[in-house]
Amino acid sequence: MARPRTPLLDRERIAATGLQLVAEQGEFSVPQIARALGVQTGSVYHHVDGRAGVIELIRELVCELITDEALAADPWDRALEEWARSYRAAFAAYPRAIPLLMTTPVRAPKVLAHYERAVARLREAGFAERDVMPLLTALENLILGSALDLAAPEAMWEPSPETPLLAGALATVGPGRADAAFELALAAFLSYARTLLDGPSEPSGP
Amino acid sequence: MARPRTPLLDRERIAATGLQLVAEQGEFSVPQIARALGVQTGSVYHHVDGRAGVIELIRELVCELITDEALAADPWDRALEEWARSYRAAFAAYPRAIPLLMTTPVRAPKVLAHYERAVARLREAGFAERDVMPLLTALENLILGSALDLAAPEAMWEPSPETPLLAGALATVGPGRADAAFELALAAFLSYARTLLDGPSEPSGP
Repeated sequence: MARPRTPLLDRERIAATGLQLVAEQGEFSVPQIARALGVQTGSVYHHVDGRAGVIELIRELVCELITDEALAADPWDRALEEWARSYRAAFAAYPRAIPLLMTTPVRAPKVLAHYERAVARLREAGFAERDVMPLLTALENLILGSALDLAAPEAMWEPSPETPLLAGALATVGPGRADAAFELALAAFLSYARTLLDGPSEPSGP
Repeated sequence: MARPRTPLLDRERIAATGLQLVAEQGEFSVPQIARALGVQTGSVYHHVDGRAGVIELIRELVCELITDEALAADPWDRALEEWARSYRAAFAAYPRAIPLLMTTPVRAPKVLAHYERAVARLREAGFAERDVMPLLTALENLILGSALDLAAPEAMWEPSPETPLLAGALATVGPGRADAAFELALAAFLSYARTLLDGPSEPSGP
């Protein structure tokens, strides 16, 4: 009698299972993925480059949600703005993946290609090469902080009679408090970035 | 024969054990705390207001690391700057606590008192009441995003021959890439906040 066909174990299913575990637990292990897929742990390792390889597959899945075309928009500040909104939405869908992905080196070719386009867009806009990574990282930090905040409750503080000023400030905040804070941070970032472009140009030559 | 004295089970030990679990796993459970302290789960519940109560104790422990006096500095932008640096350092020590604490309502009296002082400082500086929470939240998002980034490897991208622009931009970044991005984001935030103060004053009356 033929053995039942083993379930298809491809990189896509491994990635999707890993992402689901991270979404639930903030973590995953390769044996957990194997159990969820009903296969031996060793079989999973045949398809991926270790645990680090699974992290990169998960990174690719989340980053696929970022609208790549946003970076092509004109002018550059509209491009960054649209990219930031779509980036925040992608990670807001998987807030528990943020610490894992933020603290593991980026190796996924598709994601590196995405960074390459972001760097290209900033260089095209006229930013000095040395400003590009601080700008991108500062923007990512505010995006990812805001994505975590979007996963927070709307009523994030429970003021008491001892905190009347906090209560007053909270009372002026309408629905969408996380959006208001994100918009403020994004506006602050973009106006600062504009001043870097208006500044004196880099001295040429070594 | 006298039974051995049961280990002292106070809120401080529960908090410290909870924080240690969160630092290691990004999560904790009350039974885990009980096991770590060698007591019954029910005994832990006698000392705290459920799991939510433990989260607030953990929040107090982390927030104790924030220099409260920073907020008293003059002028207000120096106060926010020092507060932000100390806030980032506190959470950089416990990056895995960030998602848990960012997505649970703040109830700890000491932490609410800290927010009360931050709101008071911004109101004293002349910020409109309606701007206070968006400002504080935007600043916290960039602080916490940067704290996670500080826990990331110094070499966060592994560029390939397919990403020459990324490789070039990375080559210009010296040591302390996370600090450079944080300083940029903080400078951007503070200059934007200054423009809110310089703007037209609020119309008076309802």
